[in-house]
Amino acid sequence: MVVNNKVDSLSYDVEAPPPQGASAGSAAAAAPPPAPAHHHAHAPAAPVMREGTAVMELHKVSLPERRSTVKALRQRLAEVLFPDDPLHQFKNQSSARRLVLALQYFFPIFQWGSAYSPRLLRSDLIAGLTIASLAIPQGISYAKLANLPPIIGLYSSFVPPLIYSLLGSSRDLAVGPVSIASLVMGSMLREAVSPDDQPILYLQLAFTATFFAGVFQASLGFLRLGFIVDFLSKATLTGFMGGAAIIVSLQQLKGLLGIVHFTSHMGFIDVMRSVFKRHDEWEWQTIVMGTAFLAILLLTRQISARNPKLFWISAGAPLASVIISTILSFIWKSHSISVIGILPRGVNPPSANMLTFNGSYVALTIKTGIMTGILSLTEGIAVGRTFASINNYQVDGNKEMMAIGIMNMAGSCASCYVTTGSFSRSAVNYSAGCKTAVSNIVMAAAVLVTLLFLMPLFHYTPNVILSAIIITAVVGLIDVRGAAKLWKVDKLDFLACMAAFLGVLLVSVQMGLAIAVGISLFKILLQVTRPNMVVKGLVPGTQTYRSVVQYREAVRVPAFLVVGVESAIYFTNSMYLVERVMRYLRDEEEMALKSNQSSIRCVVLDMSAVAAIDTSGLDALSELKKILDKRNIELVLANPVGSVAERMFNSAVGETFGSDRLFFSVAEAVAAGACKAQP
Amino acid sequence: MVVNNKVDSLSYDVEAPPPQGASAGSAAAAAPPPAPAHHHAHAPAAPVMREGTAVMELHKVSLPERRSTVKALRQRLAEVLFPDDPLHQFKNQSSARRLVLALQYFFPIFQWGSAYSPRLLRSDLIAGLTIASLAIPQGISYAKLANLPPIIGLYSSFVPPLIYSLLGSSRDLAVGPVSIASLVMGSMLREAVSPDDQPILYLQLAFTATFFAGVFQASLGFLRLGFIVDFLSKATLTGFMGGAAIIVSLQQLKGLLGIVHFTSHMGFIDVMRSVFKRHDEWEWQTIVMGTAFLAILLLTRQISARNPKLFWISAGAPLASVIISTILSFIWKSHSISVIGILPRGVNPPSANMLTFNGSYVALTIKTGIMTGILSLTEGIAVGRTFASINNYQVDGNKEMMAIGIMNMAGSCASCYVTTGSFSRSAVNYSAGCKTAVSNIVMAAAVLVTLLFLMPLFHYTPNVILSAIIITAVVGLIDVRGAAKLWKVDKLDFLACMAAFLGVLLVSVQMGLAIAVGISLFKILLQVTRPNMVVKGLVPGTQTYRSVVQYREAVRVPAFLVVGVESAIYFTNSMYLVERVMRYLRDEEEMALKSNQSSIRCVVLDMSAVAAIDTSGLDALSELKKILDKRNIELVLANPVGSVAERMFNSAVGETFGSDRLFFSVAEAVAAGACKAQP
Repeated sequence: MVVNNKVDSLSYDVEAPPPQGASAGSAAAAAPPPAPAHHHAHAPAAPVMREGTAVMELHKVSLPERRSTVKALRQRLAEVLFPDDPLHQFKNQSSARRLVLALQYFFPIFQWGSAYSPRLLRSDLIAGLTIASLAIPQGISYAKLANLPPIIGLYSSFVPPLIYSLLGSSRDLAVGPVSIASLVMGSMLREAVSPDDQPILYLQLAFTATFFAGVFQASLGFLRLGFIVDFLSKATLTGFMGGAAIIVSLQQLKGLLGIVHFTSHMGFIDVMRSVFKRHDEWEWQTIVMGTAFLAILLLTRQISARNPKLFWISAGAPLASVIISTILSFIWKSHSISVIGILPRGVNPPSANMLTFNGSYVALTIKTGIMTGILSLTEGIAVGRTFASINNYQVDGNKEMMAIGIMNMAGSCASCYVTTGSFSRSAVNYSAGCKTAVSNIVMAAAVLVTLLFLMPLFHYTPNVILSAIIITAVVGLIDVRGAAKLWKVDKLDFLACMAAFLGVLLVSVQMGLAIAVGISLFKILLQVTRPNMVVKGLVPGTQTYRSVVQYREAVRVPAFLVVGVESAIYFTNSMYLVERVMRYLRDEEEMALKSNQSSIRCVVLDMSAVAAIDTSGLDALSELKKILDKRNIELVLANPVGSVAERMFNSAVGETFGSDRLFFSVAEAVAAGACKAQP
Repeated sequence: MVVNNKVDSLSYDVEAPPPQGASAGSAAAAAPPPAPAHHHAHAPAAPVMREGTAVMELHKVSLPERRSTVKALRQRLAEVLFPDDPLHQFKNQSSARRLVLALQYFFPIFQWGSAYSPRLLRSDLIAGLTIASLAIPQGISYAKLANLPPIIGLYSSFVPPLIYSLLGSSRDLAVGPVSIASLVMGSMLREAVSPDDQPILYLQLAFTATFFAGVFQASLGFLRLGFIVDFLSKATLTGFMGGAAIIVSLQQLKGLLGIVHFTSHMGFIDVMRSVFKRHDEWEWQTIVMGTAFLAILLLTRQISARNPKLFWISAGAPLASVIISTILSFIWKSHSISVIGILPRGVNPPSANMLTFNGSYVALTIKTGIMTGILSLTEGIAVGRTFASINNYQVDGNKEMMAIGIMNMAGSCASCYVTTGSFSRSAVNYSAGCKTAVSNIVMAAAVLVTLLFLMPLFHYTPNVILSAIIITAVVGLIDVRGAAKLWKVDKLDFLACMAAFLGVLLVSVQMGLAIAVGISLFKILLQVTRPNMVVKGLVPGTQTYRSVVQYREAVRVPAFLVVGVESAIYFTNSMYLVERVMRYLRDEEEMALKSNQSSIRCVVLDMSAVAAIDTSGLDALSELKKILDKRNIELVLANPVGSVAERMFNSAVGETFGSDRLFFSVAEAVAAGACKAQP
């Protein structure tokens, strides 16, 4: 056992008295190293060191190969911008092959198009028709959510899916307007322009914002800054979505109750006040119809949720509700139930001439574009990744961003507003058995038929049914179980979630988002400002040092203080680091005094988990060394990783510590430190 | 040797064929564990495992003791807000003693006051008079930098030092106006109000901003948010100070050249244009006098820098210059040399009535207060810490903030503007041998004498000499060597430095600071977004796995991919983590294919350096496991630290991995993984 574990036998005063009898024999047995690769024999080190004569053979701390500044910078940039290494497949290929690959890279349709078969078409046809039946009522409803004419929602379900099917790399995404982006666009633009008083200006702003959203999305993809989307954490989104869903549902009270004069504000309090102040406008016919259909829709939702094979029940229910309610309203012809009215027939009119890039609203449209752009990207990419992971293929985030961005830029010139991959419709698409993006083409075709021939049929469709459809769609965004899980696992994540939720509900959609992103970033900074630091002890039976808090069997080595730093050392935490080590030292010395042990003679900083260090961090290490030197305590570093070691040797700090204070591991540092302290 | 190193002998196909002869003998020698604590005997494990029969005894991954949510939160908060554990000294004390300690805590003067001796007084007297000789001309000069009447600079050198000597915990800090904060206040207030046209309003704003600066500083200290100051990294400050020094020096061209009509802008281009457009206003007498004194002052600076014992030469030179130039100007009585003019005699008039908290300038004064407050805090605390470290005592950052804040709040009611510990004067204070804060009291007394009796003497002091004094003072802030060191050690830090420098020089002081802070934060976020990940191999002769890039001798274990993650796993990097592991896997499999080795059967994630994980991170691990499961590759985790292990067991992820996929160390994970894969 002595043979196996040099450090254990080194803990020479208290915990584990070294076995005296075994040492000589076993050392002799293991003395001639049998394989040349193993000449750093640890075996004889322990007994020999106890006599303080021989120096144990230690492993040196290595540096990574020297790279030029340019090369280092290039590698770093490649890692930041091209973590997916998109050029990998082009390596070692002929130029013709490369052309084909490039074409396939930019237009994924060429990738799966050649292998397309009637069997796949059949699946896509069914899926496409299924999502069309959902997309048409949802498109009309979501357009209303953005304060836009219902027809815009249908336009937006026609052109964008076609473009996406050419450029997108997800096979399951169902493209079209989505609730959150519609809500945000509606609430942001409404603050400046009333959609009722200035409908043309409002429409212009909506298209312009869509254009900017597209530009923003495409440039994020092109500049490979896709990681910015990752800054919206899941916790944040859970809260944000929940709050937005409630806001959206409350807004639908206008339709459900048949109120004509409704607040244009989004806040919970404004809406509730408006609802009760206008109770004279409540329409019982509308309320009955709305409640009935809402109940049916929620019921079908429940059925499909219980039994995923019955997905078509909830998928078909909205269209069925629209048809039935339209027939009812046509028969009734009641004036008290407001209906959609006349919708123009025909395909998307061009709208490039409506984009306005000057005037006082530019800042607003850019802001709206960025907000809706980032939200719709987040949804689209999350949905794409989810289904890609289920079906075991990869979607390329940056490519998806470019596809969605180009789709929105083109859409803004064809009377479409912001679109992306919708979560609910993609789920239906997947359940209905779609195989490729052709299902989007089928859906677009179905929308086209609707636009060309079926528009007059919507004349008598009651508005209340759209409200019911919206509520049913957004109610799924309220993820109480997800929030509960956050509470259980991570209180700060839960806080971010609740802040986003309450911010959206009580202040405004933008504020909620801003608060949530702020908390998420603050959490990261906090971790870098107050990094975990632990006192480590030797785990008996190993050569390994672990946190004494986590491993209660780990024992401190007398006269040594081993501190593990579990964060990069940056200007944000360098002062803290010094103070924290000094505090550990104080506590340990007090403890040693109490138990009559020898006082600390050597502090070992375990740098294994220090991924990076900056100039302030290097200074802090020198500083700490200076302070400890004055108290006659040695400071040594164990296992600095490549980039940290490199930096230390590039700066004066490397000299301060010298190679005799840098160790391969804590175990070796303790062994060598003991050597020096002993004579 | 086999005995010593189980994992080495496990790498069973290529690199290190296990020595067949030695195993039996040495295993037998070490077989009976000599100490009961060492019953996890590694020794026999290796040879037995080669036959694939016995299961090696593994160490369990432990969890830290369970804490209640409240306790965990309290400990976390204590670590964030009270890293210095200020109540430690109150433990186990009588209540009378506690009262004394509390008094000493809030008024450090009680700490050193009782032991004050005539010997200390003598030292402090010399030091205090020395810094007074520097503080008087600098005070007048810096007030001009802030566009304030010169007398305000003297007022600010009287009251604040007295307050600081009661409350401050640094013994070496020389308190008074400083150049950077003066510059920033001047440039920010001047944008809104002209100090020439509306001097009273300007003065009101300056005092109000000072008050807000004090409130901000004191509340940072009181709320123990001192770590916010750490967000100004050293690199940022190097660039910012350098840029500000050049801006300040350029502004002095007005005085040095005797120009009357000068631009009120701060930018490099504006100033240079102003200098050359107004060359008809250049005054040769002023230029000669200014250049001569500037040369002398710079020379004395050089002398003192070469020989620190001659510190008094540079310390006394400004006052000497003021006296000589005043005499010269009195003799000359030339109208072409502008002089300070009449200064009111007497101590600080009260100015509490000048604080304005309503009207259109509140936002401006708050902004100015926060900016100057944070800058002066940074300087004061950095100076305090520097000299505390030289003299081997500690300053408490949060207490210092409260002291400086209270000093500024009080100052704003006594006709003082923002003050803090000045770097240059504190250095002189230290060199002159100050022992306690009494040197500040001595300085204040000297300033009082000046205010009461010597003011008429300043009548003929030429303005040009003040410009020369300012340039000499700020030239030391340009730290070219520091910038060069940054370039050598850390390119991104250098970038932050240059951005701050150029931002200050070409855009504006605030912009430069904003850019620099932005880059500093971005750098942190980047590191969290794209964390270091390394492929690890076994270092021959140890049981330790290290980066194969850093340790070229480290060998990969066939069929295993060991990946070390060197960052907390957060929503910002969870997707990247998955993608990066998949890329490593692809590369390693290609390599294995080429060299005809067995393909990867097990991925070991070394979590030693993962200090924290959030819900997105946990999801990413499940996701990765799912993807690898589909490819029939095992995913196991090695050495999760306490908080990470705790979170995993609190969430479903713990169940996904189960205790048989969590290992104490990479070595044990490889050993156990090999066990499973072998049969």
